[in-house]
Amino acid sequence: MEAFYLSELKVGLTSIRISGEEFHHLSKVMRLKTMDEILVMNGKGLILRCKIEAVSKSEAECSVLEEKIYQKQQFKTIALVPILKNIERFEFALEKLTEMGIDIIQPYYSQRTINKNLRFDRCKRILIASIKQSLNPFLPDLRRPLSLKEALLEFKDNSIVLFGDPTGKSIIEFREKLIDFNQENIVLLVGPEGDLTEEEKGLVKSLNALFIKLGNYRLRTETAIINLFSIVRNINPIG
Amino acid sequence: MEAFYLSELKVGLTSIRISGEEFHHLSKVMRLKTMDEILVMNGKGLILRCKIEAVSKSEAECSVLEEKIYQKQQFKTIALVPILKNIERFEFALEKLTEMGIDIIQPYYSQRTINKNLRFDRCKRILIASIKQSLNPFLPDLRRPLSLKEALLEFKDNSIVLFGDPTGKSIIEFREKLIDFNQENIVLLVGPEGDLTEEEKGLVKSLNALFIKLGNYRLRTETAIINLFSIVRNINPIG
Repeated sequence: MEAFYLSELKVGLTSIRISGEEFHHLSKVMRLKTMDEILVMNGKGLILRCKIEAVSKSEAECSVLEEKIYQKQQFKTIALVPILKNIERFEFALEKLTEMGIDIIQPYYSQRTINKNLRFDRCKRILIASIKQSLNPFLPDLRRPLSLKEALLEFKDNSIVLFGDPTGKSIIEFREKLIDFNQENIVLLVGPEGDLTEEEKGLVKSLNALFIKLGNYRLRTETAIINLFSIVRNINPIG
Repeated sequence: MEAFYLSELKVGLTSIRISGEEFHHLSKVMRLKTMDEILVMNGKGLILRCKIEAVSKSEAECSVLEEKIYQKQQFKTIALVPILKNIERFEFALEKLTEMGIDIIQPYYSQRTINKNLRFDRCKRILIASIKQSLNPFLPDLRRPLSLKEALLEFKDNSIVLFGDPTGKSIIEFREKLIDFNQENIVLLVGPEGDLTEEEKGLVKSLNALFIKLGNYRLRTETAIINLFSIVRNINPIG
Protein backbone atom coordinates (compact mmCIF):
# COMPACT_ATOMS: atom_id res chain seq x y z
CA MET A 1 0.00 0.00 0.00
CA GLU A 2 1.33 3.44 -0.93
CA ALA A 3 2.25 5.79 1.92
CA PHE A 4 1.99 9.58 2.07
CA TYR A 5 3.49 12.12 4.45
CA LEU A 6 1.50 14.85 6.16
CA SER A 7 3.57 16.41 8.92
CA GLU A 8 0.56 18.17 10.51
CA LEU A 9 -1.48 14.97 10.89
CA LYS A 10 -3.09 14.60 14.35
CA VAL A 11 -4.58 11.77 16.41
CA GLY A 12 -8.35 11.28 16.36
CA LEU A 13 -9.28 12.44 12.85
CA THR A 14 -12.07 10.78 10.90
CA SER A 15 -11.22 12.36 7.55
CA ILE A 16 -8.21 14.08 6.00
CA ARG A 17 -7.34 16.02 2.86
CA ILE A 18 -4.17 15.53 0.81
CA SER A 19 -3.01 18.43 -1.35
CA GLY A 20 0.17 19.92 -2.77
CA GLU A 21 3.13 17.71 -3.66
CA GLU A 22 1.75 14.62 -1.98
CA PHE A 23 -1.48 15.01 -3.92
CA HIS A 24 0.47 15.26 -7.15
CA HIS A 25 2.21 12.00 -6.28
CA LEU A 26 -1.09 10.35 -5.39
CA SER A 27 -3.05 11.36 -8.46
CA LYS A 28 -0.49 11.91 -11.23
CA VAL A 29 2.32 9.51 -10.36
CA MET A 30 0.49 6.68 -8.62
CA ARG A 31 -2.83 7.34 -10.41
CA LEU A 32 -4.82 6.38 -7.33
CA LYS A 33 -8.58 6.72 -7.45
CA THR A 34 -11.69 6.81 -5.30
CA MET A 35 -11.99 3.67 -3.14
CA ASP A 36 -8.24 2.98 -3.17
CA GLU A 37 -6.62 2.55 0.23
CA ILE A 38 -3.51 4.42 1.29
CA LEU A 39 -1.38 4.97 4.37
CA VAL A 40 -0.78 8.45 5.68
CA MET A 41 1.96 9.16 8.23
CA ASN A 42 3.19 12.20 10.12
CA GLY A 43 6.72 10.99 10.90
CA LYS A 44 6.00 11.36 14.60
CA GLY A 45 4.61 7.90 15.30
CA LEU A 46 1.15 8.17 13.75
CA ILE A 47 0.14 6.06 10.73
CA LEU A 48 -3.42 6.13 9.38
CA ARG A 49 -4.95 3.68 6.96
CA CYS A 50 -7.33 5.68 4.80
CA LYS A 51 -9.74 5.24 1.91
CA ILE A 52 -9.86 7.80 -0.88
CA GLU A 53 -13.42 9.14 -1.00
CA ALA A 54 -13.09 11.86 -3.63
CA VAL A 55 -10.40 13.24 -5.90
CA SER A 56 -10.66 16.80 -7.23
CA LYS A 57 -8.15 18.74 -9.33
CA SER A 58 -6.13 19.85 -6.36
CA GLU A 59 -6.81 17.47 -3.49
CA ALA A 60 -7.98 14.08 -2.34
CA GLU A 61 -10.48 13.60 0.45
CA CYS A 62 -9.98 10.45 2.49
CA SER A 63 -11.79 8.73 5.34
CA VAL A 64 -9.76 7.25 8.17
CA LEU A 65 -10.20 3.48 8.50
CA GLU A 66 -7.60 2.77 11.15
CA GLU A 67 -5.21 4.68 13.37
CA LYS A 68 -1.92 3.32 14.67
CA ILE A 69 0.20 5.13 17.20
CA TYR A 70 3.80 4.04 17.75
CA GLN A 71 5.74 5.00 20.88
CA LYS A 72 9.31 6.11 20.51
CA GLN A 73 11.90 4.34 22.65
CA GLN A 74 13.30 6.38 25.47
CA PHE A 75 16.92 5.94 24.45
CA LYS A 76 18.02 7.12 21.08
CA THR A 77 20.49 6.04 18.45
CA ILE A 78 22.38 8.91 16.93
CA ALA A 79 24.49 8.62 13.77
CA LEU A 80 27.36 11.07 13.32
CA VAL A 81 27.87 10.98 9.56
CA PRO A 82 30.75 12.82 7.90
CA ILE A 83 29.80 15.02 4.96
CA LEU A 84 31.24 13.28 1.90
CA LYS A 85 32.72 14.74 -1.25
CA ASN A 86 30.47 12.42 -3.21
CA ILE A 87 27.04 13.68 -2.26
CA GLU A 88 25.27 10.61 -3.67
CA ARG A 89 27.08 8.38 -1.22
CA PHE A 90 26.17 10.69 1.64
CA GLU A 91 22.53 10.68 0.60
CA PHE A 92 22.61 6.93 0.29
CA ALA A 93 23.75 6.71 3.92
CA LEU A 94 20.86 8.96 4.97
CA GLU A 95 18.35 6.82 3.09
CA LYS A 96 19.63 3.57 4.57
CA LEU A 97 19.87 4.86 8.15
CA THR A 98 16.28 6.06 7.87
CA GLU A 99 15.00 2.74 6.54
CA MET A 100 16.72 1.00 9.42
CA GLY A 101 15.19 3.34 12.00
CA ILE A 102 17.85 5.78 13.16
CA ASP A 103 16.59 8.47 15.58
CA ILE A 104 18.96 11.37 14.96
CA ILE A 105 21.32 12.09 12.07
CA GLN A 106 24.05 14.58 12.83
CA PRO A 107 26.15 15.44 9.76
CA TYR A 108 29.62 16.51 10.77
CA TYR A 109 32.78 17.85 9.17
CA SER A 110 36.22 16.70 10.14
CA GLN A 111 39.37 18.81 10.10
CA ARG A 112 40.02 17.14 6.74
CA THR A 113 36.58 17.84 5.21
CA ILE A 114 36.77 20.28 2.33
CA ASN A 115 33.12 20.82 1.47
CA LYS A 116 31.16 21.60 4.64
CA ASN A 117 27.89 22.39 2.94
CA LEU A 118 24.80 20.28 2.79
CA ARG A 119 21.73 20.59 0.61
CA PHE A 120 19.58 20.39 3.68
CA ASP A 121 16.14 20.48 2.04
CA ARG A 122 17.14 17.82 -0.43
CA CYS A 123 18.38 15.62 2.42
CA LYS A 124 15.12 16.13 4.27
CA ARG A 125 13.18 15.00 1.20
CA ILE A 126 15.29 11.83 1.06
CA LEU A 127 14.39 11.09 4.68
CA ILE A 128 10.68 11.59 3.98
CA ALA A 129 10.80 9.35 0.90
CA SER A 130 12.57 6.74 2.97
CA ILE A 131 10.05 6.63 5.84
CA LYS A 132 7.23 6.34 3.32
CA GLN A 133 8.99 3.47 1.61
CA SER A 134 10.00 1.62 4.77
CA LEU A 135 6.93 2.53 6.88
CA ASN A 136 9.23 3.70 9.65
CA PRO A 137 6.76 5.77 11.71
CA PHE A 138 9.45 8.18 12.90
CA LEU A 139 11.11 10.75 10.66
CA PRO A 140 14.70 10.99 11.88
CA ASP A 141 15.75 14.30 13.35
CA LEU A 142 18.21 15.64 10.78
CA ARG A 143 20.49 18.23 12.34
CA ARG A 144 22.50 21.03 10.76
CA PRO A 145 26.20 20.20 10.22
CA LEU A 146 28.62 20.64 13.12
CA SER A 147 32.34 20.06 13.51
CA LEU A 148 33.18 16.63 14.95
CA LYS A 149 34.09 18.21 18.25
CA GLU A 150 30.83 20.11 18.49
CA ALA A 151 28.88 17.01 17.48
CA LEU A 152 30.54 14.85 20.13
CA LEU A 153 29.95 17.49 22.81
CA GLU A 154 26.32 17.78 21.74
CA PHE A 155 25.61 14.10 22.29
CA LYS A 156 28.18 12.85 24.78
CA ASP A 157 26.01 13.05 27.91
CA ASN A 158 24.20 9.82 28.87
CA SER A 159 25.60 8.20 25.77
CA ILE A 160 27.94 5.44 24.79
CA VAL A 161 29.99 6.20 21.68
CA LEU A 162 30.71 3.39 19.20
CA PHE A 163 33.46 4.21 16.73
CA GLY A 164 33.94 2.05 13.65
CA ASP A 165 37.70 1.68 13.32
CA PRO A 166 40.10 -0.96 11.98
CA THR A 167 42.10 -0.85 15.24
CA GLY A 168 39.02 -1.92 17.20
CA LYS A 169 37.59 -5.26 18.30
CA SER A 170 34.61 -7.28 17.13
CA ILE A 171 31.27 -6.09 18.49
CA ILE A 172 30.81 -9.53 20.04
CA GLU A 173 33.54 -8.73 22.57
CA PHE A 174 31.57 -5.70 23.71
CA ARG A 175 28.23 -7.43 24.00
CA GLU A 176 28.13 -7.62 27.81
CA LYS A 177 29.23 -4.04 28.04
CA LEU A 178 26.50 -2.94 25.66
CA ILE A 179 23.86 -4.71 27.69
CA ASP A 180 25.14 -2.93 30.83
CA PHE A 181 24.82 0.32 28.97
CA ASN A 182 21.24 -0.10 27.92
CA GLN A 183 20.11 2.88 29.90
CA GLU A 184 21.81 5.30 27.56
CA ASN A 185 21.76 6.70 24.09
CA ILE A 186 24.06 5.17 21.50
CA VAL A 187 26.21 7.42 19.34
CA LEU A 188 27.48 5.79 16.15
CA LEU A 189 30.56 7.36 14.62
CA VAL A 190 32.56 6.55 11.50
CA GLY A 191 35.42 8.52 10.02
CA PRO A 192 35.39 10.47 6.77
CA GLU A 193 37.32 9.73 3.58
CA GLY A 194 40.98 10.06 4.53
CA ASP A 195 40.15 9.22 8.16
CA LEU A 196 39.97 11.44 11.23
CA THR A 197 43.05 13.42 12.27
CA GLU A 198 45.09 12.21 15.26
CA GLU A 199 43.70 15.10 17.29
CA GLU A 200 40.15 14.05 16.48
CA LYS A 201 40.89 10.40 17.29
CA GLY A 202 42.31 11.54 20.62
CA LEU A 203 39.06 13.31 21.35
CA VAL A 204 37.07 10.17 20.52
CA LYS A 205 39.32 8.12 22.82
CA SER A 206 38.91 10.62 25.63
CA LEU A 207 35.16 9.92 25.59
CA ASN A 208 35.75 6.21 26.33
CA ALA A 209 34.35 5.28 22.96
CA LEU A 210 34.25 1.60 22.07
CA PHE A 211 36.39 1.02 18.99
CA ILE A 212 34.55 -1.51 16.83
CA LYS A 213 36.26 -3.38 14.01
CA LEU A 214 33.92 -3.75 11.04
CA GLY A 215 35.23 -6.70 9.04
CA ASN A 216 38.65 -7.08 7.50
CA TYR A 217 38.66 -4.59 4.66
CA ARG A 218 38.64 -0.85 4.16
CA LEU A 219 34.98 0.15 4.09
CA ARG A 220 33.68 3.27 2.46
CA THR A 221 32.12 5.70 4.90
CA GLU A 222 28.54 4.94 3.92
CA THR A 223 29.18 1.20 4.12
CA ALA A 224 30.77 1.57 7.54
CA ILE A 225 27.90 3.52 9.11
CA ILE A 226 25.31 1.10 7.71
CA ASN A 227 27.32 -1.85 9.05
CA LEU A 228 27.72 -0.28 12.45
CA PHE A 229 24.02 0.48 12.79
CA SER A 230 23.07 -2.91 11.43
CA ILE A 231 25.09 -4.83 14.00
CA VAL A 232 24.02 -2.63 16.90
CA ARG A 233 20.39 -2.99 15.84
CA ASN A 234 20.60 -6.74 15.49
CA ILE A 235 23.01 -7.79 18.22
CA ASN A 236 22.09 -5.44 20.91
CA PRO A 237 18.84 -5.65 22.83
CA ILE A 238 18.84 -1.86 23.09
CA GLY A 239 19.39 -1.13 19.42
CA MET B 1 48.06 4.03 -1.37
CA GLU B 2 46.35 3.56 -4.75
CA ALA B 3 45.58 -0.01 -5.84
CA PHE B 4 45.57 -1.47 -9.35
CA TYR B 5 44.15 -4.70 -10.71
CA LEU B 6 46.09 -7.11 -12.88
CA SER B 7 44.25 -10.42 -13.15
CA GLU B 8 47.27 -12.26 -14.59
CA LEU B 9 49.60 -11.32 -11.74
CA LYS B 10 51.63 -14.27 -10.37
CA VAL B 11 53.58 -15.06 -7.21
CA GLY B 12 57.37 -14.53 -7.21
CA LEU B 13 57.77 -11.59 -9.61
CA THR B 14 60.46 -8.97 -9.06
CA SER B 15 59.10 -6.47 -11.57
CA ILE B 16 55.79 -5.88 -13.35
CA ARG B 17 54.39 -3.71 -16.15
CA ILE B 18 51.08 -1.89 -16.03
CA SER B 19 49.43 -1.00 -19.34
CA GLY B 20 45.96 -0.46 -20.83
CA GLU B 21 43.12 0.92 -18.76
CA GLU B 22 44.93 0.54 -15.46
CA PHE B 23 47.88 2.48 -16.86
CA HIS B 24 45.55 5.24 -17.97
CA HIS B 25 44.20 5.46 -14.44
CA LEU B 26 47.72 5.46 -12.99
CA SER B 27 49.20 8.14 -15.22
CA LYS B 28 46.29 10.31 -16.36
CA VAL B 29 43.80 10.13 -13.50
CA MET B 30 46.05 9.67 -10.47
CA ARG B 31 49.07 11.34 -12.12
CA LEU B 32 51.49 8.98 -10.40
CA LYS B 33 55.19 9.28 -11.18
CA THR B 34 58.50 7.49 -10.88
CA MET B 35 59.30 6.63 -7.24
CA ASP B 36 55.63 6.60 -6.19
CA GLU B 37 54.46 3.45 -4.43
CA ILE B 38 51.34 1.54 -5.44
CA LEU B 39 49.54 -1.69 -4.64
CA VAL B 40 48.82 -4.23 -7.36
CA MET B 41 46.34 -7.05 -6.82
CA ASN B 42 45.09 -10.00 -8.86
CA GLY B 43 41.79 -10.58 -7.06
CA LYS B 44 42.90 -14.10 -6.21
CA GLY B 45 44.65 -13.40 -2.91
CA LEU B 46 47.87 -11.77 -4.10
CA ILE B 47 48.69 -8.14 -3.30
CA LEU B 48 52.05 -6.60 -4.25
CA ARG B 49 53.49 -3.36 -2.96
CA CYS B 50 55.45 -1.86 -5.85
CA LYS B 51 57.53 1.18 -6.71
CA ILE B 52 57.12 2.88 -10.06
CA GLU B 53 60.54 2.81 -11.77
CA ALA B 54 59.69 4.26 -15.18
CA VAL B 55 56.63 5.67 -16.93
CA SER B 56 56.44 5.67 -20.74
CA LYS B 57 53.57 6.74 -22.98
CA SER B 58 51.82 3.41 -22.73
CA GLU B 59 53.02 1.63 -19.64
CA ALA B 60 54.59 1.86 -16.21
CA GLU B 61 57.42 -0.37 -15.09
CA CYS B 62 57.43 -1.19 -11.39
CA SER B 63 59.69 -3.08 -9.04
CA VAL B 64 58.11 -5.36 -6.44
CA LEU B 65 58.91 -4.31 -2.87
CA GLU B 66 56.69 -6.72 -0.98
CA GLU B 67 54.43 -9.66 -1.73
CA LYS B 68 51.41 -10.65 0.37
CA ILE B 69 49.47 -13.83 -0.19
CA TYR B 70 46.06 -14.24 1.42
CA GLN B 71 44.43 -17.65 1.84
CA LYS B 72 40.76 -17.99 1.09
CA GLN B 73 38.59 -19.55 3.78
CA GLN B 74 37.36 -23.03 3.04
CA PHE B 75 33.69 -22.20 3.54
CA LYS B 76 32.10 -19.57 1.39
CA THR B 77 29.44 -16.95 1.77
CA ILE B 78 27.14 -16.71 -1.22
CA ALA B 79 24.71 -13.84 -1.79
CA LEU B 80 21.62 -14.52 -3.88
CA VAL B 81 20.67 -11.03 -5.05
CA PRO B 82 17.48 -10.38 -7.01
CA ILE B 83 17.89 -8.34 -10.17
CA LEU B 84 16.26 -5.00 -9.45
CA LYS B 85 14.32 -2.69 -11.73
CA ASN B 86 16.51 0.14 -10.50
CA ILE B 87 19.91 -0.92 -11.74
CA GLU B 88 21.74 1.63 -9.57
CA ARG B 89 20.40 -0.03 -6.45
CA PHE B 90 21.45 -3.43 -7.71
CA GLU B 91 24.94 -2.15 -8.49
CA PHE B 92 25.13 -0.54 -5.10
CA ALA B 93 24.44 -3.93 -3.51
CA LEU B 94 27.24 -5.48 -5.57
CA GLU B 95 29.68 -2.76 -4.52
CA LYS B 96 28.86 -3.09 -0.83
CA LEU B 97 28.91 -6.90 -0.77
CA THR B 98 32.34 -6.78 -2.41
CA GLU B 99 33.72 -4.24 0.07
CA MET B 100 32.50 -6.45 2.89
CA GLY B 101 34.13 -9.55 1.44
CA ILE B 102 31.43 -11.73 -0.14
CA ASP B 103 32.75 -14.84 -1.94
CA ILE B 104 30.10 -15.49 -4.57
CA ILE B 105 27.37 -13.24 -5.98
CA GLN B 106 24.54 -15.06 -7.72
CA PRO B 107 22.05 -12.67 -9.33
CA TYR B 108 18.63 -14.26 -9.58
CA TYR B 109 15.22 -13.51 -11.00
CA SER B 110 12.01 -14.29 -9.20
CA GLN B 111 8.72 -15.25 -10.83
CA ARG B 112 7.82 -11.58 -10.35
CA THR B 113 10.98 -10.14 -11.92
CA ILE B 114 10.26 -8.33 -15.18
CA ASN B 115 13.73 -7.42 -16.41
CA LYS B 116 15.99 -10.47 -16.24
CA ASN B 117 18.96 -8.92 -17.96
CA LEU B 118 22.17 -7.78 -16.40
CA ARG B 119 24.94 -5.63 -17.81
CA PHE B 120 27.44 -8.24 -16.81
CA ASP B 121 30.65 -6.46 -17.86
CA ARG B 122 29.59 -3.30 -16.12
CA CYS B 123 28.86 -5.27 -12.93
CA LYS B 124 32.27 -6.91 -13.16
CA ARG B 125 33.92 -3.49 -13.39
CA ILE B 126 32.08 -2.41 -10.24
CA LEU B 127 33.45 -5.44 -8.42
CA ILE B 128 36.99 -4.66 -9.54
CA ALA B 129 36.71 -1.02 -8.51
CA SER B 130 35.41 -2.16 -5.16
CA ILE B 131 38.24 -4.60 -4.37
CA LYS B 132 40.76 -1.90 -5.28
CA GLN B 133 39.04 0.56 -3.00
CA SER B 134 38.57 -1.82 -0.06
CA LEU B 135 41.78 -3.84 -0.56
CA ASN B 136 39.74 -7.01 -0.41
CA PRO B 137 42.26 -9.48 -1.91
CA PHE B 138 39.53 -11.66 -3.43
CA LEU B 139 37.42 -10.62 -6.40
CA PRO B 140 33.98 -12.14 -5.78
CA ASP B 141 32.85 -14.77 -8.24
CA LEU B 142 30.00 -13.04 -10.09
CA ARG B 143 27.71 -15.61 -11.70
CA ARG B 144 25.32 -15.31 -14.62
CA PRO B 145 21.66 -14.80 -13.59
CA LEU B 146 19.56 -17.85 -12.72
CA SER B 147 15.99 -18.32 -11.60
CA LEU B 148 15.61 -18.49 -7.82
CA LYS B 149 14.96 -22.21 -8.03
CA GLU B 150 18.07 -22.84 -10.11
CA ALA B 151 20.13 -20.65 -7.80
CA LEU B 152 18.98 -22.48 -4.67
CA LEU B 153 19.66 -25.85 -6.27
CA GLU B 154 23.11 -24.68 -7.35
CA PHE B 155 24.17 -23.81 -3.80
CA LYS B 156 22.03 -25.89 -1.46
CA ASP B 157 24.52 -28.70 -0.82
CA ASN B 158 26.69 -28.30 2.29
CA SER B 159 25.07 -24.94 2.90
CA ILE B 160 22.86 -23.23 5.39
CA VAL B 161 20.39 -20.77 3.85
CA LEU B 162 19.61 -17.52 5.69
CA PHE B 163 16.53 -15.75 4.38
CA GLY B 164 15.87 -12.15 5.39
CA ASP B 165 12.14 -12.02 6.05
CA PRO B 166 9.82 -10.03 8.34
CA THR B 167 8.21 -13.27 9.61
CA GLY B 168 11.58 -14.47 10.91
CA LYS B 169 13.40 -14.16 14.22
CA SER B 170 16.37 -12.13 15.35
CA ILE B 171 19.74 -13.53 14.32
CA ILE B 172 20.66 -13.72 18.00
CA GLU B 173 18.21 -16.57 18.46
CA PHE B 174 20.04 -18.54 15.82
CA ARG B 175 23.51 -17.92 17.12
CA GLU B 176 24.11 -21.37 18.63
CA LYS B 177 22.77 -22.96 15.51
CA LEU B 178 25.07 -20.90 13.33
CA ILE B 179 28.09 -21.93 15.39
CA ASP B 180 27.09 -25.59 14.97
CA PHE B 181 26.90 -25.00 11.27
CA ASN B 182 30.35 -23.57 10.86
CA GLN B 183 31.44 -26.39 8.64
CA GLU B 184 29.27 -25.25 5.79
CA ASN B 185 28.79 -22.53 3.26
CA ILE B 186 26.33 -19.76 4.04
CA VAL B 187 23.76 -18.74 1.46
CA LEU B 188 22.25 -15.28 2.02
CA LEU B 189 18.90 -14.67 0.39
CA VAL B 190 16.62 -11.65 0.29
CA GLY B 191 13.45 -11.20 -1.72
CA PRO B 192 12.93 -8.84 -4.66
CA GLU B 193 10.72 -5.78 -4.86
CA GLY B 194 7.19 -7.09 -4.40
CA ASP B 195 8.49 -10.10 -2.47
CA LEU B 196 8.85 -13.74 -3.49
CA THR B 197 5.77 -15.66 -4.61
CA GLU B 198 4.21 -18.18 -2.22
CA GLU B 199 5.58 -20.99 -4.36
CA GLU B 200 9.08 -19.56 -4.07
CA LYS B 201 8.74 -19.09 -0.32
CA GLY B 202 7.63 -22.71 -0.05
CA LEU B 203 10.79 -23.75 -1.84
CA VAL B 204 12.91 -21.71 0.56
CA LYS B 205 11.15 -23.29 3.54
CA SER B 206 11.67 -26.78 2.15
CA LEU B 207 15.43 -26.18 2.32
CA ASN B 208 15.24 -25.59 6.10
CA ALA B 209 16.30 -22.00 5.65
CA LEU B 210 16.60 -19.86 8.76
CA PHE B 211 14.17 -16.96 8.49
CA ILE B 212 15.94 -13.89 9.87
CA LYS B 213 14.07 -10.74 10.83
CA LEU B 214 16.05 -7.65 9.86
CA GLY B 215 14.78 -4.84 12.07
CA ASN B 216 11.23 -3.56 12.30
CA TYR B 217 10.69 -1.80 9.02
CA ARG B 218 10.34 -2.66 5.35
CA LEU B 219 13.87 -2.68 3.98
CA ARG B 220 14.72 -2.16 0.35
CA THR B 221 16.35 -5.18 -1.25
CA GLU B 222 19.84 -3.70 -1.31
CA THR B 223 19.53 -2.60 2.32
CA ALA B 224 18.33 -6.05 3.35
CA ILE B 225 21.19 -7.97 1.74
CA ILE B 226 23.79 -5.58 3.22
CA ASN B 227 22.19 -5.94 6.66
CA LEU B 228 22.07 -9.71 6.41
CA PHE B 229 25.71 -10.00 5.39
CA SER B 230 26.77 -7.44 7.96
CA ILE B 231 25.24 -9.31 10.88
CA VAL B 232 26.47 -12.71 9.71
CA ARG B 233 29.94 -11.30 9.25
CA ASN B 234 30.00 -9.66 12.65
CA ILE B 235 28.05 -12.06 14.86
CA ASN B 236 29.14 -15.30 13.49
CA PRO B 237 32.60 -16.73 14.00
CA ILE B 238 32.37 -18.23 10.52
CA GLY B 239 31.34 -15.09 8.68
